[in-house]
Amino acid sequence: MSEEMNRNTEATSFQAAEGITRRLARYLVAARAEDLPQAVRDHATRTFLNWMGCAIGASRHEAVEIAMAALKPFFGPPQATVLGRPEQVDILSAALFNGISSHVFDFDDTHLKTVIHPAGPVASAILALAEYQPVSGAEFLHALALGIETECRIGNAVYPDHYHTGWHITGTAGVFGAAAAAGKLLGLDEQRMCWALGLAATQPVGLREMFGTMTKSFHPGRAAQNGLTAALLAAGGYTSSDQAIEAKRGWANVLSTHRDYREITGELGQRYESLLNSYKPFACGIVIHPVIDGCIQLRKEHGLDAAAVASVSLKVHPLVLELTGKREPRTGLDGKFSVFHSAAVAIIDGRAGEAQYSDAAVRAPVTVSLRDRVSAEIDPELAADAAHITIELVDGQRLEKRVEHAVGSIERPMSDAELEAKFFDLVAPVLGAARADALLQACWHLGEIADVAELARAAA
Amino acid sequence: MSEEMNRNTEATSFQAAEGITRRLARYLVAARAEDLPQAVRDHATRTFLNWMGCAIGASRHEAVEIAMAALKPFFGPPQATVLGRPEQVDILSAALFNGISSHVFDFDDTHLKTVIHPAGPVASAILALAEYQPVSGAEFLHALALGIETECRIGNAVYPDHYHTGWHITGTAGVFGAAAAAGKLLGLDEQRMCWALGLAATQPVGLREMFGTMTKSFHPGRAAQNGLTAALLAAGGYTSSDQAIEAKRGWANVLSTHRDYREITGELGQRYESLLNSYKPFACGIVIHPVIDGCIQLRKEHGLDAAAVASVSLKVHPLVLELTGKREPRTGLDGKFSVFHSAAVAIIDGRAGEAQYSDAAVRAPVTVSLRDRVSAEIDPELAADAAHITIELVDGQRLEKRVEHAVGSIERPMSDAELEAKFFDLVAPVLGAARADALLQACWHLGEIADVAELARAAA
Repeated sequence: MSEEMNRNTEATSFQAAEGITRRLARYLVAARAEDLPQAVRDHATRTFLNWMGCAIGASRHEAVEIAMAALKPFFGPPQATVLGRPEQVDILSAALFNGISSHVFDFDDTHLKTVIHPAGPVASAILALAEYQPVSGAEFLHALALGIETECRIGNAVYPDHYHTGWHITGTAGVFGAAAAAGKLLGLDEQRMCWALGLAATQPVGLREMFGTMTKSFHPGRAAQNGLTAALLAAGGYTSSDQAIEAKRGWANVLSTHRDYREITGELGQRYESLLNSYKPFACGIVIHPVIDGCIQLRKEHGLDAAAVASVSLKVHPLVLELTGKREPRTGLDGKFSVFHSAAVAIIDGRAGEAQYSDAAVRAPVTVSLRDRVSAEIDPELAADAAHITIELVDGQRLEKRVEHAVGSIERPMSDAELEAKFFDLVAPVLGAARADALLQACWHLGEIADVAELARAAA
Repeated sequence: MSEEMNRNTEATSFQAAEGITRRLARYLVAARAEDLPQAVRDHATRTFLNWMGCAIGASRHEAVEIAMAALKPFFGPPQATVLGRPEQVDILSAALFNGISSHVFDFDDTHLKTVIHPAGPVASAILALAEYQPVSGAEFLHALALGIETECRIGNAVYPDHYHTGWHITGTAGVFGAAAAAGKLLGLDEQRMCWALGLAATQPVGLREMFGTMTKSFHPGRAAQNGLTAALLAAGGYTSSDQAIEAKRGWANVLSTHRDYREITGELGQRYESLLNSYKPFACGIVIHPVIDGCIQLRKEHGLDAAAVASVSLKVHPLVLELTGKREPRTGLDGKFSVFHSAAVAIIDGRAGEAQYSDAAVRAPVTVSLRDRVSAEIDPELAADAAHITIELVDGQRLEKRVEHAVGSIERPMSDAELEAKFFDLVAPVLGAARADALLQACWHLGEIADVAELARAAA
């Protein structure tokens, strides 16, 4: 009896799932750039600008250097730019390296509902493609928005179960975003768009176990490369499933214990997930941002000095300790996964940029000492962008700060000026101030550019 | 209380899992070619020969043509052979295409315990690598054996749950085999071998939903390419997890509901899974082989003619209908997933080679007509390599055949002569009889060759 009920429920759920991949493909093929709401276009521009700043800023990071040196003997023709660097490589390699560099500082954009970093997989794939075939800024922004929509909606459908299972959702859902956006620019018809999504589904990238190693930033890079490969193969007629997302042994059933397909096909072209994308003011996992925000505020308000601090007690959302509970980070990268280190540098430096996550920074005696005085406990009542900080001073004084929405959240978004400052901080050290400024202006005008390849080359 | 027990069990199981990836890496690094038992070496030679025949035989298949045409603009330098073809491509692309062509006929080797096709991911990766750096035949056979050992042991640890979830285990476990074998030839130390396995773990390829489309053969190809990429990145110092297989959010926990790590590290260097590899006499999914075998035997024994057959009743293992239950295949590829079609051609032609799985063959009226007279039911008592066939003739006669072990199984392996005939059938139409024969002899002497690149070039 219970088995029969089970079978009935299964039958119903498969019925609801019918045609999800095809409906999504149909939407992607039919969507027109001129119908994209202005607010979505503006958001896509901000997303692109933020992504490019991150990629250029990290373009000399050892993860990028090592990956490029290891694969250099196998590069194809010089077709596309590796952002912030002199090398031109084939477009599939460019997608990989730009995806790596855009995520290696963990400073890129975040779709807070799913913790997907949307730009990495999508923008890395289509900027490379735009250097291979002419793409206007308007088409580019449209494809970027569709790609983000695709990956975030698919992410919504399986979040949080899929993420809790251990998948790095940026790589596993991101591959769909890359395939959809590249497929749009390649002009795929409905059948081929289905195949592109199928070829994407079969190449998910990323286990959360890799967090804290270079392989984490490999995920959006490889997702970009896999999605672009999927679209190119589908364009050539390489066949795949037409129901890769919803089939019994398709992506959603195999990679998640729960799924809600209405998230994928509901209100397509009306509700835009890309409007929920956010940008980070701090160079670390977003879950620590409320703590950093609060510590910086307390530092400013009270002119705090590390030596005066006896203890720092944090109350945080449960994810904070799960994701960033490293007590004794040994490297800069490790430091990004330590709420203790992050609170310490926020109090000491009043910032949490790349400089605060260098190898030297995590080993600085004053930081280590203050870090050891930081404790954290979970408060299940707190929202993901909230935190409560209590600082006891040596003189017995007690300071408190409750952060309801961290800066960079949907409720307290970074302003255009803050985004510009972040871009400049990241790009100027690599390209120089004058070129950084020119590129910044070009990014703001992305939607009006006749050929996006020019913008890519300006970032070399 | 129950939560606490749960936690205890979890703790115990993580304890048992400790160091699995590192222990495997240590073994791979320390293993010496001269210690490989002769039987394993012989088996690896047969595996290689069978793999090469399949890859050359399918080298003009449209899946290969389409994939190559779609990605050609992005190829790197001409470093490695695409088997059976004139093109030289970069080694990462060669790994992809040779992996695709070796599986596209579904005629390659099978590790029956896990239904992994071991050669595709491993041989495709290291034959390409052997054209980039000199590798002796003895080293090559050793790396091949280690790669097969790695993927089959990891497969054993999660089979059947992982497969039942919907993963195409050839691509998901195969990527480890490719990384291990390539890592061995690159001379990785223990730390880098761990990282190579970590980079492999994070790139599993393949959903079973793709069966019946070109994307199925993409899986071993992409697994080869991903594993080779993993080893190259690790060799360059790209960091990853040291416990990618067994960690809480590592491969085995995320991709399977069950795991037995003793399968991975138990009796390493003593028990060889590669001795359990088998070769297919028929060009379709192995689960249908007992049916085909039995039908061919009945045809021989009774001089059967399709027109004389009133009905064919099959009793089969449960997997047969799950995997190959297509009643009305529309394409040749579809036909490989139809036990009904396979029984029909076995009775009509007395064979089940590539010719019996062409688009024309599945549409031939005499085949369609006989196919409609075939029925199948599950008998849970039957082993996977067994079947029971009952044929009713128009004249009322009733013929029966029980197959206990299909030809090609461990108990009834193909002879060297049968393997040679299969190789020749596949290769002669592509390279001509003389070159096919010379290549066959070269394959038998793989272990003695000074530079494996010569053999690869002889297969162009």
